[in-house]
Amino acid sequence: MMSERTPLTIQQIYTLAETCMLANGCDSANAAAVAKTVSTAERDGSESHGLFRIPGHVASLRSGKVNGKAEPEIEAVTPAAIRLDGHNGFAPLALERGIPVLADAAETLGIAVLAIRKSHHFAALWPETEAIAERGLVGLACTAHTPMVAPYGAKKAFFSTNPISFAWPRPNKPPYVFDMATAAMARGEVGLAARDGHALPEGVGLDSDGNPTTDAKAVHQGGVILPFGTYKGSAIATMIELLSAGLVGDYFSYEAGEADNKDGGPAQGGQLIIAMSPKIIAGDNWEAHSEDFLSKLENMDGVRLPGQRRHKNRLSTEPRLIKTELVEKIRSLTSDE
Amino acid sequence: MMSERTPLTIQQIYTLAETCMLANGCDSANAAAVAKTVSTAERDGSESHGLFRIPGHVASLRSGKVNGKAEPEIEAVTPAAIRLDGHNGFAPLALERGIPVLADAAETLGIAVLAIRKSHHFAALWPETEAIAERGLVGLACTAHTPMVAPYGAKKAFFSTNPISFAWPRPNKPPYVFDMATAAMARGEVGLAARDGHALPEGVGLDSDGNPTTDAKAVHQGGVILPFGTYKGSAIATMIELLSAGLVGDYFSYEAGEADNKDGGPAQGGQLIIAMSPKIIAGDNWEAHSEDFLSKLENMDGVRLPGQRRHKNRLSTEPRLIKTELVEKIRSLTSDE
Repeated sequence: MMSERTPLTIQQIYTLAETCMLANGCDSANAAAVAKTVSTAERDGSESHGLFRIPGHVASLRSGKVNGKAEPEIEAVTPAAIRLDGHNGFAPLALERGIPVLADAAETLGIAVLAIRKSHHFAALWPETEAIAERGLVGLACTAHTPMVAPYGAKKAFFSTNPISFAWPRPNKPPYVFDMATAAMARGEVGLAARDGHALPEGVGLDSDGNPTTDAKAVHQGGVILPFGTYKGSAIATMIELLSAGLVGDYFSYEAGEADNKDGGPAQGGQLIIAMSPKIIAGDNWEAHSEDFLSKLENMDGVRLPGQRRHKNRLSTEPRLIKTELVEKIRSLTSDE
Repeated sequence: MMSERTPLTIQQIYTLAETCMLANGCDSANAAAVAKTVSTAERDGSESHGLFRIPGHVASLRSGKVNGKAEPEIEAVTPAAIRLDGHNGFAPLALERGIPVLADAAETLGIAVLAIRKSHHFAALWPETEAIAERGLVGLACTAHTPMVAPYGAKKAFFSTNPISFAWPRPNKPPYVFDMATAAMARGEVGLAARDGHALPEGVGLDSDGNPTTDAKAVHQGGVILPFGTYKGSAIATMIELLSAGLVGDYFSYEAGEADNKDGGPAQGGQLIIAMSPKIIAGDNWEAHSEDFLSKLENMDGVRLPGQRRHKNRLSTEPRLIKTELVEKIRSLTSDE
């Protein structure tokens, strides 16, 4: 099932996204921030966080769930604890405004936290942790959205896929970074397996009666996904709920699920981001010391550090091959407004 | 193989440990701190972190690896970033001195970090995160020791079991807390399975040739343990190395393994502890909001929150049943000095 593809440069991807967002009620700052997030994902080969997300963005603007002209508001509750109220906008502008303030605080104090609330996150987390690492800081981020994962032992969805991302800065190369769902498998992958008739690995999901199954269709239609790593992954998913909802003061997944209008766009959700300065905490030798560890690790037989495929894709100056059907859909969403 | 047991009150356990530590070169502050950690573990039913650890403590005092009279030194590099130099002592006194300083900083600034170096940790992590939660703060702690876990894809040990603990405060009840190794199974459990001839679950270990096996003996004798949750658990184990060694400025596991004199006591290792104030970051409603989440979670069919068995054991006023052989060993280590 090869679908037709249209070659687009990163700039063309950016413009396609930006124009569509402007046509659907975003102001220029929000349209630019969303377009940057989407085009950066396509640059790095992450299709599922690229232009694929634009129809959902449009749906949430048209339904009135998201305010495309929201101006994020930053409040430093203390010099180290920064709150950001997204005023019901998309996350990219909130992050663009919040992360430099967070990084400044961490550079001064050694550690700082950014709690983003009333924002709609619809992307990966690595853009924020990598932005922090580009400042020479350690970044840790997590968020929650709507329920699709059953806690270990349970048979009903309560957690979202609860992703966590961590980035560690490296001299003259991309950071060590991971960005992973705490679900055993992403919902989109389960959907693809269901469509293509592939079996799931054991431990990925339950059917609608709560029984373990490897039948992707049974998990996708009325079943639930399980946390990765059984009870340990479930504990980490719980921590992510508490950090990104309880500590931020925004919706837990079950609250977001109840509040969301299900327009296909991003639910409201909180995001917690921590930045730390190894220079302040560890001292001057931190870079050589951690680089020694990372180079030993990546030189072990069989080891591949996460994020490397993305960092390699980033270097390509070739146009990206976007599904023609998607390009046409975005163009129609741009002109029918 | 039921071994004989001796009933001891928590106070008797404390005194047994304290007397032995004093007889082997600890000053009163260090002896009291170790005895408190050990007796608290026995109180909570955690035998593997209780009196069982005393012979290792003694070995490391007798070999000269650990200084039983070390006075921890605290340096607030910034108001939010606190370094503690253990001066080669045991971790309990370092934690007793450092955690109140960390908690004070987090209560003022919303977030703070404690980086402990040149210290010897030989206990669970939940005592430190629970102490933070008792102050109404969120606690996160991690540490590394010596290699026994292969990174995902590799066949050789490089990580330690790299535990992480998280505690979230709850009104009028023990915190939500987990404390877990990022190894698929604790080394001690693999040893017990090898002794008793039990098979391991799949995914727990490799034999000495680097092949997956469920033979506990093959893993225990020359093989390696794997991270929990395959590549995702391995990424979290990597993060823990970077946080507790790279960010603290102390040994990575492979460095600790090279430096350790293998006397059976704790290797030198770093520990990173973060404390955060939900009152400052989320605001006044945080307690009711997060309690709603946690009570929904613990009331789901099939869900058991971590730490509950320990919190239940804690309430018992009965004497604890300690292996008689261990009690006798500790007494002999006390009198033969």
